[in-house]
Amino acid sequence: MALVGVLGGMGPLATVDFMHRVICLTRARCDQEHLPMIVANLTRTPDRSRAIIDGGTDPLPALLDGIALLNRCGVDVIAIPCNSAHHWYAPLREHSAAPILHIVDASVAALPAGVRRVAVLATGGTLVSGFYQTALRARGFEPVMPGVAAQRDIAACIAAVKAGKIAASVRCLSRALDALARRDVGVAVMGCTEIPIAARALPDAPFALVDSTQELARATVAHAVERGWGRAV
Amino acid sequence: MALVGVLGGMGPLATVDFMHRVICLTRARCDQEHLPMIVANLTRTPDRSRAIIDGGTDPLPALLDGIALLNRCGVDVIAIPCNSAHHWYAPLREHSAAPILHIVDASVAALPAGVRRVAVLATGGTLVSGFYQTALRARGFEPVMPGVAAQRDIAACIAAVKAGKIAASVRCLSRALDALARRDVGVAVMGCTEIPIAARALPDAPFALVDSTQELARATVAHAVERGWGRAV
Repeated sequence: MALVGVLGGMGPLATVDFMHRVICLTRARCDQEHLPMIVANLTRTPDRSRAIIDGGTDPLPALLDGIALLNRCGVDVIAIPCNSAHHWYAPLREHSAAPILHIVDASVAALPAGVRRVAVLATGGTLVSGFYQTALRARGFEPVMPGVAAQRDIAACIAAVKAGKIAASVRCLSRALDALARRDVGVAVMGCTEIPIAARALPDAPFALVDSTQELARATVAHAVERGWGRAV
Repeated sequence: MALVGVLGGMGPLATVDFMHRVICLTRARCDQEHLPMIVANLTRTPDRSRAIIDGGTDPLPALLDGIALLNRCGVDVIAIPCNSAHHWYAPLREHSAAPILHIVDASVAALPAGVRRVAVLATGGTLVSGFYQTALRARGFEPVMPGVAAQRDIAACIAAVKAGKIAASVRCLSRALDALARRDVGVAVMGCTEIPIAARALPDAPFALVDSTQELARATVAHAVERGWGRAV
């Protein structure tokens, strides 16, 4: 029996959101046609963004423990619904028998053709690490970083989702998008899995939003379908 | 680090719903204050209701495998967000080092005082097994079984949720509740974790509904809080 592994808890609502999308993207008439998953919802993993930005506790040992646990459970592929954690993608991949899908590859591949300037909505850690900018430039896109005030709003949006304060998260995201709309942005990639939870409650957005949670879920189901583990809707 | 184990996938949407409720019932300002969980979303577990009613494949070996996997992961308590699986509670408990919370105990304890006749909304397997009726009578309640047509609607509601057809599930549930409303029912216990997913989209119900998913989530968070693993909202 093929098993999908999820290294989650970063944050827990984003993990639940990711699982929900995998279920909705799977064509199933009964429980048994859904994809079996082992989910390590490891909420105690030290803050990824803080570690990247200002030398907070290194989350790599906890991330490696999670990857080892999923491999011991016999998973055949691993998805990590946390963008910032992909700062450590190389060492995680190196220590995993199961392949690990890359959320940034999935998200950048989903960007519509014809746009050039792509805003990156992400944690400060993800922006400082720079892996979205590198992936975007490699595909011919021009990454647009939010200004200081907009980035403060995005960080507040993410923190609010992690604390379960969805209404507050939507207000912060809305302000950040309004600021970016004045900067000739064609599309934004929601490069943090908390942001789509806020965006879902947004009445409208000034430009298209590519959703990293949804794209990782699509990549997970596609991986499963290619190997005959299940079917896609 | 204390770990909550979840034996899920029965069905997967119900597992996601359960996780979501645990998260919402936990007081947390950041990821690290949420409860860590290991979730075995074992969708391939043979159908519990069919096994009880007409000798379908026995799910007990798969359930025991799931319990063993969670124990190997080091979980400190296990929740099973599937009522029908509790037909096998005794052998699962016997083979688990970690205690297993009982969804029926949690649900029956949440029934309001002052009502007598309690409708049981559940799979055919749960009704045939009879564990809800036993638990209700032990607490002085009179269990009310749906009639044949209403039970057919409840089974269809459950199957529709498992297939992701929420609108259809709501129509079936609504018809079943209307039929039960004509039978002097004071409250109904949603003794199948698919039913609350349909009930959430119901405009109104003719009587109060006790939600087994919510009560198991409350029991899980209470278990964690009593042991100092986290805080409740």
